[in-house]
Amino acid sequence: MSLQILAVEGLPEVRPGDDLATLIVGAVELRERDCVVVTQKIVSKAENRLVEIDPDDPRSHKPLVEEEAVRILRRRGDLLITETRHGFVCANAGIDLSNVDRGLAALLPEDADRSARRIRDGIRARAGVEVAVVVSDTFGRPWRRGVTDVAIGCAGIAGVVDLRGTTDALGRELQVTEVAVVDEIAAAADLVMGKARGVPVAVVRGLDPAWFRPGEVRREVVRDPADDLFR
Amino acid sequence: MSLQILAVEGLPEVRPGDDLATLIVGAVELRERDCVVVTQKIVSKAENRLVEIDPDDPRSHKPLVEEEAVRILRRRGDLLITETRHGFVCANAGIDLSNVDRGLAALLPEDADRSARRIRDGIRARAGVEVAVVVSDTFGRPWRRGVTDVAIGCAGIAGVVDLRGTTDALGRELQVTEVAVVDEIAAAADLVMGKARGVPVAVVRGLDPAWFRPGEVRREVVRDPADDLFR
Repeated sequence: MSLQILAVEGLPEVRPGDDLATLIVGAVELRERDCVVVTQKIVSKAENRLVEIDPDDPRSHKPLVEEEAVRILRRRGDLLITETRHGFVCANAGIDLSNVDRGLAALLPEDADRSARRIRDGIRARAGVEVAVVVSDTFGRPWRRGVTDVAIGCAGIAGVVDLRGTTDALGRELQVTEVAVVDEIAAAADLVMGKARGVPVAVVRGLDPAWFRPGEVRREVVRDPADDLFR
Repeated sequence: MSLQILAVEGLPEVRPGDDLATLIVGAVELRERDCVVVTQKIVSKAENRLVEIDPDDPRSHKPLVEEEAVRILRRRGDLLITETRHGFVCANAGIDLSNVDRGLAALLPEDADRSARRIRDGIRARAGVEVAVVVSDTFGRPWRRGVTDVAIGCAGIAGVVDLRGTTDALGRELQVTEVAVVDEIAAAADLVMGKARGVPVAVVRGLDPAWFRPGEVRREVVRDPADDLFR
């Protein structure tokens, strides 16, 4: 088994109102069961989730962070670890200023699973192929240094694959049962995107066909706070 | 830019004392700057990090967990969230029973960065190619359901890539600066390994050449507890 991950280069700068499906099918030839990974940044831009901030005040987006967060888990200096209304736990409510024009900040999409479905439906309509779509964002983690990309929305692919009841290579029932494949896909895609190279779309080709079914990050990946040992 | 991820199939069942570099170069033709991802399970087996447990008592490895942990962060029923002496925060001190013979439990390698260096040196000696090696393991995360693979050791590749001082595609200095590329590599490799398929080695081909330099998970990726908001 092998997998290919392709950076989609040559996309134009995304503007509010742009149709991402059209831009993507114009830039890459997609095949059935490709998984298209799209960064949150261009989804937020296309959906006009941009707000004006004072370009000369590096703290001017902070009131926005408090507005967008439903809970603040930790606070250190300017860094807030927040829970967003989607249930994501991340720095500064997912608001950031990189790769947007000076004087603007990008908020998270209102519903990134819905964003993923729209892009998927658009690709089907324009190119006639059934693909999966993952919307990725860059989050920190406790206990480990460095950020990694995770999924904030998906369509046409399982968020979590349940291996319960399957057996390992020695015929024993597996103890670890649920794999967050959309997060692994987002992380894999980031290896070709690079934070600084401005490649906001990648294609993952060759994933297990069994994973292609309706999926949602919010319902499958976001952990119920009642079930969470660290909230 | 594109990346290829190959599952290395046909490896024999690993036994204590086996030389993993020899087994790997016998199973796959490696190229310069490939990154070889090896699961913790076969590293622990080769290094004889196996201990006997009562095969009829599902809780018989629990005293081992308390022995291997330096700290217990949370406890719920049989699940302990522990800090290991390497600084990893994971369930049950990283001890697990899947894919090992009945009556045995596998402990984490004593020093998985050293394990990675040995495999890398062995591959250089046997196949004459310079590769990177990542030792991966499967960890849960707070706030998000499902497990993902992360790196517990590496050699010949940066644990964390520092993008500080580089600029984004619009020429602004990046806010998010440090990417845990070894964790993204481990996650990507898991997409072809699969928990149940018993493929314990994968090759990631086509990574950014700039990442190939001496690296260590414990020094680079494990967060200093003093700098950690969730410990």
